[in-house]
Amino acid sequence: MAHSRDEEVELLGNTNVDYKMDYDPDILEAFENRHTYRDYFVKFNCPEFTSLCPKTGQPDFATVYISYIPDERMVESKSLKLYLFSFRNHGDFHEDCMNTILNDLVELMDPRYIEVWGKFTPRGGISIDPYTNYGKPGTKYEKMAEHRMMNHDMYPETIDHR
Amino acid sequence: MAHSRDEEVELLGNTNVDYKMDYDPDILEAFENRHTYRDYFVKFNCPEFTSLCPKTGQPDFATVYISYIPDERMVESKSLKLYLFSFRNHGDFHEDCMNTILNDLVELMDPRYIEVWGKFTPRGGISIDPYTNYGKPGTKYEKMAEHRMMNHDMYPETIDHR
Amino acid sequence: MAHSRDEEVELLGNTNVDYKMDYDPDILEAFENRHTYRDYFVKFNCPEFTSLCPKTGQPDFATVYISYIPDERMVESKSLKLYLFSFRNHGDFHEDCMNTILNDLVELMDPRYIEVWGKFTPRGGISIDPYTNYGKPGTKYEKMAEHRMMNHDMYPETIDHR
Amino acid sequence: MAHSRDEEVELLGNTNVDYKMDYDPDILEAFENRHTYRDYFVKFNCPEFTSLCPKTGQPDFATVYISYIPDERMVESKSLKLYLFSFRNHGDFHEDCMNTILNDLVELMDPRYIEVWGKFTPRGGISIDPYTNYGKPGTKYEKMAEHRMMNHDMYPETIDHR
Amino acid sequence: MAHSRDEEVELLGNTNVDYKMDYDPDILEAFENRHTYRDYFVKFNCPEFTSLCPKTGQPDFATVYISYIPDERMVESKSLKLYLFSFRNHGDFHEDCMNTILNDLVELMDPRYIEVWGKFTPRGGISIDPYTNYGKPGTKYEKMAEHRMMNHDMYPETIDHR
Amino acid sequence: MAHSRDEEVELLGNTNVDYKMDYDPDILEAFENRHTYRDYFVKFNCPEFTSLCPKTGQPDFATVYISYIPDERMVESKSLKLYLFSFRNHGDFHEDCMNTILNDLVELMDPRYIEVWGKFTPRGGISIDPYTNYGKPGTKYEKMAEHRMMNHDMYPETIDHR
Amino acid sequence: MAHSRDEEVELLGNTNVDYKMDYDPDILEAFENRHTYRDYFVKFNCPEFTSLCPKTGQPDFATVYISYIPDERMVESKSLKLYLFSFRNHGDFHEDCMNTILNDLVELMDPRYIEVWGKFTPRGGISIDPYTNYGKPGTKYEKMAEHRMMNHDMYPETIDHR
Amino acid sequence: MAHSRDEEVELLGNTNVDYKMDYDPDILEAFENRHTYRDYFVKFNCPEFTSLCPKTGQPDFATVYISYIPDERMVESKSLKLYLFSFRNHGDFHEDCMNTILNDLVELMDPRYIEVWGKFTPRGGISIDPYTNYGKPGTKYEKMAEHRMMNHDMYPETIDHR
Amino acid sequence: MAHSRDEEVELLGNTNVDYKMDYDPDILEAFENRHTYRDYFVKFNCPEFTSLCPKTGQPDFATVYISYIPDERMVESKSLKLYLFSFRNHGDFHEDCMNTILNDLVELMDPRYIEVWGKFTPRGGISIDPYTNYGKPGTKYEKMAEHRMMNHDMYPETIDHR
Amino acid sequence: MAHSRDEEVELLGNTNVDYKMDYDPDILEAFENRHTYRDYFVKFNCPEFTSLCPKTGQPDFATVYISYIPDERMVESKSLKLYLFSFRNHGDFHEDCMNTILNDLVELMDPRYIEVWGKFTPRGGISIDPYTNYGKPGTKYEKMAEHRMMNHDMYPETIDHR
Ligand SMILES: [Ca+2]
Ligand SMILES: [Ca+2]
Ligand SMILES: [Ca+2]
Ligand SMILES: [Ca+2]
Ligand SMILES: [Ca+2]
Ligand SMILES: [Ca+2]
Ligand SMILES: [Ca+2]
Ligand SMILES: [Ca+2]
Ligand SMILES: [Ca+2]
Ligand SMILES: [Ca+2]
Ligand SMILES: [Ca+2]
Ligand SMILES: [Ca+2]
Ligand SMILES: [Ca+2]
Ligand SMILES: [Ca+2]
Ligand SMILES: [Ca+2]
Ligand SMILES: [Ca+2]
Repeated sequence: MAHSRDEEVELLGNTNVDYKMDYDPDILEAFENRHTYRDYFVKFNCPEFTSLCPKTGQPDFATVYISYIPDERMVESKSLKLYLFSFRNHGDFHEDCMNTILNDLVELMDPRYIEVWGKFTPRGGISIDPYTNYGKPGTKYEKMAEHRMMNHDMYPETIDHR
Repeated sequence: MAHSRDEEVELLGNTNVDYKMDYDPDILEAFENRHTYRDYFVKFNCPEFTSLCPKTGQPDFATVYISYIPDERMVESKSLKLYLFSFRNHGDFHEDCMNTILNDLVELMDPRYIEVWGKFTPRGGISIDPYTNYGKPGTKYEKMAEHRMMNHDMYPETIDHR
Repeated sequence: MAHSRDEEVELLGNTNVDYKMDYDPDILEAFENRHTYRDYFVKFNCPEFTSLCPKTGQPDFATVYISYIPDERMVESKSLKLYLFSFRNHGDFHEDCMNTILNDLVELMDPRYIEVWGKFTPRGGISIDPYTNYGKPGTKYEKMAEHRMMNHDMYPETIDHR
Repeated sequence: MAHSRDEEVELLGNTNVDYKMDYDPDILEAFENRHTYRDYFVKFNCPEFTSLCPKTGQPDFATVYISYIPDERMVESKSLKLYLFSFRNHGDFHEDCMNTILNDLVELMDPRYIEVWGKFTPRGGISIDPYTNYGKPGTKYEKMAEHRMMNHDMYPETIDHR
Repeated sequence: MAHSRDEEVELLGNTNVDYKMDYDPDILEAFENRHTYRDYFVKFNCPEFTSLCPKTGQPDFATVYISYIPDERMVESKSLKLYLFSFRNHGDFHEDCMNTILNDLVELMDPRYIEVWGKFTPRGGISIDPYTNYGKPGTKYEKMAEHRMMNHDMYPETIDHR
Repeated sequence: MAHSRDEEVELLGNTNVDYKMDYDPDILEAFENRHTYRDYFVKFNCPEFTSLCPKTGQPDFATVYISYIPDERMVESKSLKLYLFSFRNHGDFHEDCMNTILNDLVELMDPRYIEVWGKFTPRGGISIDPYTNYGKPGTKYEKMAEHRMMNHDMYPETIDHR
Repeated sequence: MAHSRDEEVELLGNTNVDYKMDYDPDILEAFENRHTYRDYFVKFNCPEFTSLCPKTGQPDFATVYISYIPDERMVESKSLKLYLFSFRNHGDFHEDCMNTILNDLVELMDPRYIEVWGKFTPRGGISIDPYTNYGKPGTKYEKMAEHRMMNHDMYPETIDHR
Repeated sequence: MAHSRDEEVELLGNTNVDYKMDYDPDILEAFENRHTYRDYFVKFNCPEFTSLCPKTGQPDFATVYISYIPDERMVESKSLKLYLFSFRNHGDFHEDCMNTILNDLVELMDPRYIEVWGKFTPRGGISIDPYTNYGKPGTKYEKMAEHRMMNHDMYPETIDHR
Repeated sequence: MAHSRDEEVELLGNTNVDYKMDYDPDILEAFENRHTYRDYFVKFNCPEFTSLCPKTGQPDFATVYISYIPDERMVESKSLKLYLFSFRNHGDFHEDCMNTILNDLVELMDPRYIEVWGKFTPRGGISIDPYTNYGKPGTKYEKMAEHRMMNHDMYPETIDHR
Repeated sequence: MAHSRDEEVELLGNTNVDYKMDYDPDILEAFENRHTYRDYFVKFNCPEFTSLCPKTGQPDFATVYISYIPDERMVESKSLKLYLFSFRNHGDFHEDCMNTILNDLVELMDPRYIEVWGKFTPRGGISIDPYTNYGKPGTKYEKMAEHRMMNHDMYPETIDHR
């Protein structure tokens, strides 16, 4: 359930937090969107994402970009940080991590629109970038998700692994 | 109320200004658009935006991009500078600051179209970028706002917090 | 009136020109488009634009980008250079300069489509970028202008004023 | 035939692989997509592609970008690496290599959508970049492929061969 | 007339070529497209284009980008190199060179779609970038050309002539 | 007086801090260097420095780089953050701010070597970058300071104020 | 003669200045260095320098970098801005402008060390960058000037005039 | 003790490794330098370093650069990877991590020269970069270490935490 | 023989020049240095250099950087442009072209110090950059040349031929 | 033995070469240095180097930079290309490849000075860059090698493996 913006700031001021190192979606906290009268985007740039390869146990690293248009609830940024840290000792494949983050944030916020893009460092000469998105079913945001998928990443970054 | 372009330059030539350090939308001044016969964009690049975290009191920093298509009135650039400076000792969350700026400029200018994009420096490993926009209701600019929201930021900058 | 391409090159070979330092649209010269059977763009990159602030007299500096699809006439590049130089001691606001350039080139060439984008250096912590365009009324180019305005600059450059 | 995700990780943990140096599409292995309920992209950045010129025998080098929306099957990344390595001593022209990769991956995965973009280093002052794509016939992805072809690469990288 | 792919490689292996220094479209050679069942792009990056100013005789320099979707015939890359070199001592204006290249390649290949973009170094403080394209008349590629012209270059490179 | 490293971490874990907005060097805290047996550098990158112009009251902004070789004491990073924030409503000239920071850190730590470099955003078309350093008198570090001053910044960044 | 720092700020607060458009070294004002007990650098980045070609009258443009170690006097930044603006309608060659600026600032400040580096935009395919410096004769700063000349610009920027 | 180069490759071919997540210098393995007749550098670029803040438990992230001139022994790169991974759940301050890595590699290899540079992501608006080095005492490499410390990082990267 | 600065500008104003396309050192013109009382550098950035391969006849392209400290005579920039253009149809190897330019400029100017650096585009996967310099024999500039050769290009550009 | 420059061009004009895919130093050919009266550098940028890991057989990739001051003989660039290609199916460690190249070129040319720097793509999260050099024993070039080793790579590139 979402907190009010006032309750939410309680958490922000308190740093005696536990850094959970195993995947835990319950860490996520929401608060109320003050501007539901309007569509707007909030983007989180997260260059410190790390998880473990489920088979080899080798750490994986990615920059994760999360963008969403809130409906009634927004994700509290400190809880998002702790949630992303909870993947640190968790084993999962690249594309599963990104879809899991998307699903958990949809569950938490029921947003109008959301997308999650991970850009991983290379293993064996190849780097992998999953991108997944979601629009509220039966709304224009569902079409928006389809539109953005259709136009996704047509200008890939130059990548040389250096 | 909007000044004429001639009156407006009075302000520009006078630098004995007070730099208000608390949020004050009354600082904003408008002048008349000389080219209402045409749509055109004016963009302000503002890399010196700073406010305070409402809970911890810690300073926040952002580059703010403001773009609009004027109707009858335009915002005077020096008053915009002073208005943005007035957030300096003001406590508010990232997304609230951006929506407040949007609302104040809509109130001042009644523009055809406007958008505000803030790109903040990171706290705790995550940086946050709110983007909000507005088109005059019942006009093609309302659809323009929806169109630009739907296509917003599909090529995120590479962010590594360095 | 437009010259032929042969007459035009007369000007290009003659450098005993007067550099007018006050705004003068009569400097502009046109020549005939050899490829009217096709739409194509010509872009001018002009990083040496400078004018004066109409109130303070302080020099302003911009990079100006001019792109157009010619109809019967094209602007001769050397005359464009001299025309842009003629703003050097001329006082006008950023958005007025850009609309003036647009209007003068429409007057000269009656192009199918044209756009002018100025990117100015900062004053007081803010830099200003006006963008204006035009499509021949009653043609598909009028819609093109509207389309390009609607999709203008959705990926702003990173600006830090350094 | 596709493996389950569990079987697939067997391969990932086993490094006693043979690096085949001649083109061999049988190297490719698939596994089951866990998220068939949703469209999402997986992109592979492959800056270590090399083949031979079919006539001169001179090595060619490219960065290859492969992006796809999976249907039931996904390509296992280690097998993709080995597959791409199998071009090492194989002679084929740039555009044929890219279309072959596309065809082999369509054969393997029967994906909803896929595209392959190669960016080669120059020979004789010219570098060549083939781009090819595919959408499942008779679905919206076929239109997606057409849409992406129509909008392909409208902002070419600045290339100076240094 | 187009050669087969086998005949074509004859030329590639033979370097006892004459470098013609005067414009000669007969240098261009075609070969058969092996993948006519599909639309795909081939792009040539050509940073070594040079011609002469028709009036002053001063050398001009450009990077030329050529992109096309082949139909039955493709341009052989070595002959393209020699063709572009043939402008070396040829006098013509920027926009005429680009339209000539387009016309010659249309004549040679009868492609589905093609575009040519030249980015020249500055003279007198202005650099000029012509862009021209073509889609086979009466096909969807004609609309594609119009679509790409309408959306051309909406994010100009930052140009400072340094 | 310097704390032990253990005492120091007390401060780091406690975020109920006061953000002083007026210059106060007493905020600075030191702790013991564990590696006095060796010279090593610690650099602080501080892109969020802001102060006030002493005459106009206008906010100034800089990125400040602080590098030092510790002797017995090191500056605690959280106290450094709070110290730099204390310039927020303090009026002083660029070069005075940088020399003050240097002097305060010398007073606190008595380091072997230290340097402070500020890179400010422009006012009136000029940006200003003061650089100052210090080596313990009568030691080789005094010569080191002279050496680094003599070789300072011989490859200036490209600055265009955009 | 140098002002005190207090007198100096008078000028900074007063914007009813005359922008002289002809070279005038008397515009330059000095104030007292508060930190004569130490060597430190002040660098001015000036991307808005413009003068006229003495023969053709064509405007020239440069970014000018000025770095110095003050002795008793420092140059007031606003007067420096006005001084540099005074070259706007002044005709002189690139290397003469840079040496003149150096000489005028030596005359004004009698600094320990100073250097001036201009980077001009190209004319006719060549851009020109003069660099000149000075150390107080008979001091270590004279050797410093010689040392910096000997090691000047050994890693030239990549220049392509775009 | 160092392995021969042949023994060393045993490890490289075997991937059934344990990824230790607590600091363990015993992971490091050495092999014999085949080129002791000459000084040469080997540099490791390690952008995936992560440890924990000893007080708050928050993960820290850095890119670590390690450069050395080997004497008789060299560090095996796979063991170095595992060693660096062993900091993953280990709590230590930035400058202590870098000095620990240096000390462990000196202990392992007894190199002629070695340096370790960490560049961390920011916390609270400041990022920290420790740099430490070592030259074999009583040799020219000891002077080399002093020389490189004296000239360290005189051209700091531009850091804006984005 | 050198002209006076006044005579020299005659050439600058006259554009009815012949662009010689075969190597001709007689094109070079000198004028008197007005600042012989001081060492200073003048650098020419020349990205439009082109010559021919002496064997294959294929055009070669380079960016040439020329830096010198004048003695009594300076090279007139327009004559330098024409001189460099005279290599256009001249066949010579990369390192011979650079040494020839150096020798011709030494012959013309008898400078205190001069260096010439060419950076060529690749042929066959390798690009070649010759660097040559000269200091007046028996002066400190001879040692300067040796010093700069010894420290040449220790931080090579990242080159990927794209 | 070295060829004359005339003999050397024979090879350059003949492309019916065998591309050897196993290490073969006999491929290297030398020709006479025409400018033995002077020290000058020739640098080869080689971004297409590839070899095999001696244990796993996995291909490795590097950009190799080779710089030297010739004495009597120079390495012919086409033979250098073929020599570097001969590592394609050859198994050797990174640092051994670089030292082998150095040794072979010393053997071929007996140069005054030479250095070889390889920058490899990452394996397992770490990329490795060996650097080795050589100066003719008993000459000033031996000291030059030591000097350049002592000052090597003090400003590492930013590496993030993307
Ligand atoms: Ca690259
Ligand atoms: Ca990269
Ligand atoms: Ca970044
Ligand atoms: Ca960065
Ligand atoms: Ca910038
Ligand atoms: Ca370039
Ligand atoms: Ca490039
Ligand atoms: Ca540029
Ligand atoms: Ca620039
Ligand atoms: Ca900039
Ligand atoms: Ca450039
Ligand atoms: Ca920045
Ligand atoms: Ca950055
Ligand atoms: Ca490159
Ligand atoms: Ca990065
Ligand atoms: Ca990178």
